[in-house]
Amino acid sequence: MAETPEEQPTRTAEQTSPSPAAQRPSGLHPDLEWREVRRGRRPGEQYVRIVRPFARGFQRARPGYLVAREEILAPKTGFARLWYTVRRLLIGPPIPTAHEVHERLSKVKALAVFSSDALSSVAYATEEIMRVLILAGTAALALTLPISLAIVVLIAIVVTSYQQTIRAYPGGGGSYTVASDNLGRLPGLVAASALLIDYVLTVAVSIAAAMTAVTSALPSLYPYKVDFAVFAVILVMLAHLRGIRESGNIFAAPTYLFIVSILGLIALGLWRVLTGAPIFYTPPSEATPAEPHPLTLFLILSAFAQGSTALTGIEAVSNGVPAFKPPEWRNARITLLWMGGLLATMFLGISFLATVIGVIPDPHEQESVVSQIARALVGPTWFYYVVQAATMLILVLAANTSFADFPRLASFLARDGFLPRQFAFRGERLAFSTGIIALAVVAILLLVLFEGSVHRLIPLYAVGVFTAFTLSQLGMVQYWRRRREAGWRWRAVINGFGCLATGIVVVVIAVTKFAHGAWMVLVAAPLLILMMLGINRHYQALARALATRPGERVLPENLPPAVIVPVSRLDRPALAALSFARSISPDVTAVHIAFSPEEAEAFRAQWEQYGLNIPLVIVESPYRALVEPLLAYIDAIDKQDPRRPVTVVLAEFVPRHWWEYLLHNQTALRLKFHLFFRPNTIVIDVPYHVGRGFEGEQLERPAETTTR
Amino acid sequence: MAETPEEQPTRTAEQTSPSPAAQRPSGLHPDLEWREVRRGRRPGEQYVRIVRPFARGFQRARPGYLVAREEILAPKTGFARLWYTVRRLLIGPPIPTAHEVHERLSKVKALAVFSSDALSSVAYATEEIMRVLILAGTAALALTLPISLAIVVLIAIVVTSYQQTIRAYPGGGGSYTVASDNLGRLPGLVAASALLIDYVLTVAVSIAAAMTAVTSALPSLYPYKVDFAVFAVILVMLAHLRGIRESGNIFAAPTYLFIVSILGLIALGLWRVLTGAPIFYTPPSEATPAEPHPLTLFLILSAFAQGSTALTGIEAVSNGVPAFKPPEWRNARITLLWMGGLLATMFLGISFLATVIGVIPDPHEQESVVSQIARALVGPTWFYYVVQAATMLILVLAANTSFADFPRLASFLARDGFLPRQFAFRGERLAFSTGIIALAVVAILLLVLFEGSVHRLIPLYAVGVFTAFTLSQLGMVQYWRRRREAGWRWRAVINGFGCLATGIVVVVIAVTKFAHGAWMVLVAAPLLILMMLGINRHYQALARALATRPGERVLPENLPPAVIVPVSRLDRPALAALSFARSISPDVTAVHIAFSPEEAEAFRAQWEQYGLNIPLVIVESPYRALVEPLLAYIDAIDKQDPRRPVTVVLAEFVPRHWWEYLLHNQTALRLKFHLFFRPNTIVIDVPYHVGRGFEGEQLERPAETTTR
Repeated sequence: MAETPEEQPTRTAEQTSPSPAAQRPSGLHPDLEWREVRRGRRPGEQYVRIVRPFARGFQRARPGYLVAREEILAPKTGFARLWYTVRRLLIGPPIPTAHEVHERLSKVKALAVFSSDALSSVAYATEEIMRVLILAGTAALALTLPISLAIVVLIAIVVTSYQQTIRAYPGGGGSYTVASDNLGRLPGLVAASALLIDYVLTVAVSIAAAMTAVTSALPSLYPYKVDFAVFAVILVMLAHLRGIRESGNIFAAPTYLFIVSILGLIALGLWRVLTGAPIFYTPPSEATPAEPHPLTLFLILSAFAQGSTALTGIEAVSNGVPAFKPPEWRNARITLLWMGGLLATMFLGISFLATVIGVIPDPHEQESVVSQIARALVGPTWFYYVVQAATMLILVLAANTSFADFPRLASFLARDGFLPRQFAFRGERLAFSTGIIALAVVAILLLVLFEGSVHRLIPLYAVGVFTAFTLSQLGMVQYWRRRREAGWRWRAVINGFGCLATGIVVVVIAVTKFAHGAWMVLVAAPLLILMMLGINRHYQALARALATRPGERVLPENLPPAVIVPVSRLDRPALAALSFARSISPDVTAVHIAFSPEEAEAFRAQWEQYGLNIPLVIVESPYRALVEPLLAYIDAIDKQDPRRPVTVVLAEFVPRHWWEYLLHNQTALRLKFHLFFRPNTIVIDVPYHVGRGFEGEQLERPAETTTR
Repeated sequence: MAETPEEQPTRTAEQTSPSPAAQRPSGLHPDLEWREVRRGRRPGEQYVRIVRPFARGFQRARPGYLVAREEILAPKTGFARLWYTVRRLLIGPPIPTAHEVHERLSKVKALAVFSSDALSSVAYATEEIMRVLILAGTAALALTLPISLAIVVLIAIVVTSYQQTIRAYPGGGGSYTVASDNLGRLPGLVAASALLIDYVLTVAVSIAAAMTAVTSALPSLYPYKVDFAVFAVILVMLAHLRGIRESGNIFAAPTYLFIVSILGLIALGLWRVLTGAPIFYTPPSEATPAEPHPLTLFLILSAFAQGSTALTGIEAVSNGVPAFKPPEWRNARITLLWMGGLLATMFLGISFLATVIGVIPDPHEQESVVSQIARALVGPTWFYYVVQAATMLILVLAANTSFADFPRLASFLARDGFLPRQFAFRGERLAFSTGIIALAVVAILLLVLFEGSVHRLIPLYAVGVFTAFTLSQLGMVQYWRRRREAGWRWRAVINGFGCLATGIVVVVIAVTKFAHGAWMVLVAAPLLILMMLGINRHYQALARALATRPGERVLPENLPPAVIVPVSRLDRPALAALSFARSISPDVTAVHIAFSPEEAEAFRAQWEQYGLNIPLVIVESPYRALVEPLLAYIDAIDKQDPRRPVTVVLAEFVPRHWWEYLLHNQTALRLKFHLFFRPNTIVIDVPYHVGRGFEGEQLERPAETTTR
């Protein structure tokens, strides 16, 4: 509350000094400073003091326009201040809106930023195919490579399809945008809900796989897998609450390290195989099932469905076209091609090595297949640890990507009125805090429920991605059909083929994985859509109900309000409330609830003694209720004159300590609660702070700022 | 909201009908009815309608005085209504204050009402002596009878002492009253806290002993002992919330049944002993300790201390003197003598029989000593079951007595400002609901913590009673010394001897039972006293801080308030808030928080389009905070003119369903919270009910109640 006065000692005896009352502004003139004349220490001496009440918290831009300073964000009292300090330490000082920056990425950096999600699936895709096939015995693992080839074909189709999306949507063509624009609201929401679920699962699966990369190298950490996973999610969450952006520099090193180390591993393996050098491999104990299933088509399709998670994240480039250096669309296309090529190469290479070496997946998910390959090829050397570290890092980066994508999509949905408005607000650090925290909470829940097992999470994963792919491609088909540009037919065919291929994959995944967890997504997504539609209906109905036109009147302005002041005792809070009521309306009635006629009589006598000149109504409450008779009285008053809202002035006293509340009846609080939900009622709170009162009281003493 | 109009169709064309606006009262005249002229269906026809808005909820007593009807207590909406119905079923319809009745008791009924607590201790006092003595082996049980005799002497001393209290305090001489009156505030509080603790323990011990009486007869119920005990406490609590009074009729039957059956048992036992008839007794298995303690003086004193619980409840008569038929004090004295005599006889009789039969207490507390005696004498006959049933009933009645005493004492303490005010309020059924519920909660806690064991609860029990005895007697000594009536010397000697005797017992109990639980009371009581003193200091400081004199002013009445209206959007709630602000003061400023200069510009343009003629201040918040810039702005305004409290009008909208709140920022709520704790600030809530709005709005349509 410190003022910033500039004191200029002057002898004002000679000057014609106007009275301070004339200088002090009479109303609320917020962007003014004024001079006050104060008496000096020696008789006859006076000071002129320039008062600038707005100087502390605001920069004065121009009349009627203030700009708040950062200082006002810091709370002044105990716990709030502590929490503010802790939060500032964790997520940093606030950033003003104007400081938002948009980094433009070169192709090399863009590849790093956008491909971490897609490439990181190399760490688990091959393994997930093998985990299904091994149910039919180790011999069935020979199918790993053919299934991987089929998935690579799928990658090629999807990449080709998205090449077109990039061209058509240079402003960023997320599935929600493309589906909404071309197919309508409901398909857009289906794509959005599929993507939201997908982003949550990206975090859960990537972090779980990252922890498997850690426990592969350091088996002693295996028991703490879930704890570490939760900790990792919280770390990434905090980084995003700080407002970390998809900065190219952070991403470049781990991504290229991963690419180089995996490609190196593949090259080494190929060299060994071609030269016929021996590879020493010991499979994990009790790895094969005692009684193998028959190798049915269903099992093969299941393996394909699990492996198709390799495609997750492939759409990232098309979402982020505006982040590329110009010409944006051309650079984005080239980057997407590179990404597809790298993904296909690495995925095929790992599948090939796993087949050649004869790797058998660890049933306990302690060691990953990639780790087994690396160990067989290079043993526990530094290179092995580099591979594991790079795998872990790129998986964490993949989770990191979702922490940028989920809040952004949620903010689009909130902006369009399909999610609560909170998702569209940027926090102190310009991050969409609500979305970031929501994502972290759900991902942690999944990690704990599924005990950090990649294999148990994967069946939930791919449904959402491929649904979004399918709708996005379908939207593109519609896009070309509407535009009818040159060559629209073959463009529509390309996207139509992509749509068909990914659509078939959706069905395959939904059917084969239904019992293993996909059903959860097939239940959750429609619920999410229903919720979003309900939220939208609410916001639209509300906007209609609250809309106004210029010149419209909601309350009659010419009538002073009919004011009721409940009074239980004639104490200072009550007198303050009565005075305030009188200052706002000539039509004031005090109401006292009495428990007995004797008490009523005594109160009226005291009332008359005070000579307040306000009509008093005493309501006797034979059943000793306080709130209900007041409400009934207000009901009746309301009926008497429905033109004006009933206005209730509540005297409340605020004790010095919160625990002192326990010693007083919460009547005012209960009354406030009831009145808040009563239509046509306005509640005025006149809180009286014990020991501080109103400053108005202090003014009755001789004050320094007034002349005598 | 149904009105009760009386419609009188009249042709008013001939009559000189004043305009309805003249008839309708202009201000708040709560106890008026008025006539309204309404147009009839046929042209020219008019109705005169008598409007009585207060008819539904109130009886109109006289101008400015209303009496609320019972109907207004019933809530109108869903859950509140259900809860009201359930509560009404459990505790009955509300009772008006005027219906309070005071029953006068004959000596026979008074003995039943006041002695249940004292006499019921016969059910466990002997047993508790034996449980200590048996630690020194079964031979030590021979000391049971001598110790019982010592306790009977103590009973005689206390009864004699209290005979004098009854004479001196015919209005009821509870220990709190006597000690406060004669010794001062602190001794009064010591007695009060001792009694409060004692009442809680009476409930716990009596209910636990009642359950032992049940499990003695029906051993299969033993595992559910604690559950039944909790259930019994809740039943007694509900009975008291219904407002059961110490009705003589309810008490008479069980008390006299208990007296008769125990005296019958003693007579039968004496007869058997005198005639030398054989008594067959099988002691419980593993009843004696493997390695007996030596029989020290400490052990004997411990046994005495445990047995002294026989005296609990002996003070009840002196508390209740006004309930006797006149001459009250004489009837009370005679009743107390009878009670003392019966207590001594029954207690000695049971101790004698236990010694003669050679009863050994059951270490598991499944079967009581009284039950063992009865079983040995009469076997499993109907008489045995009558003894057990009567024992159980009188113990429940003893707990019942505490449910009357505790809330009454708590209400005295609350009235004197030593406990929260809530304890002094009578509920819908005229019962002190807060005290009743508090007692039940603490007693249930004790029963659960001590697993319903009488033996483990008893060490906590007697300290409080004897402390209250001692202080009460000391108070009486002081009383006689001050009065110096005829014979005051020997009266003081009698009370002084009583004080000395009970004082010694306090020390004996505190020392011998310290480690077994008495320490808890010796810790709890001072804490309770400190709490009561703290509460008293708070209430007194508050009363001083809030006190007023007639003619005193708290706020300057002549100044209209300086009003600030935060506006985020120009919707209906905002327009309503602005209109209301204008209706109460000419000095209104609207404040808009903008997140960017562009948004600020757009808002000002819209504002000017609306032509509201209210100054607008835009505060730009570069850090996207809403509440903090507003608070800083209010701080500055407050500094500008400290004579008037800052008045903030908040536009809030109330959605139709509670869950819709989740979809909106809780900004208004946060702001309200912060402003409530800000001194010198008044908050006005203008809630806008979606879909209902203000009735004022509807009046803009052609309304029935106004003439054209």
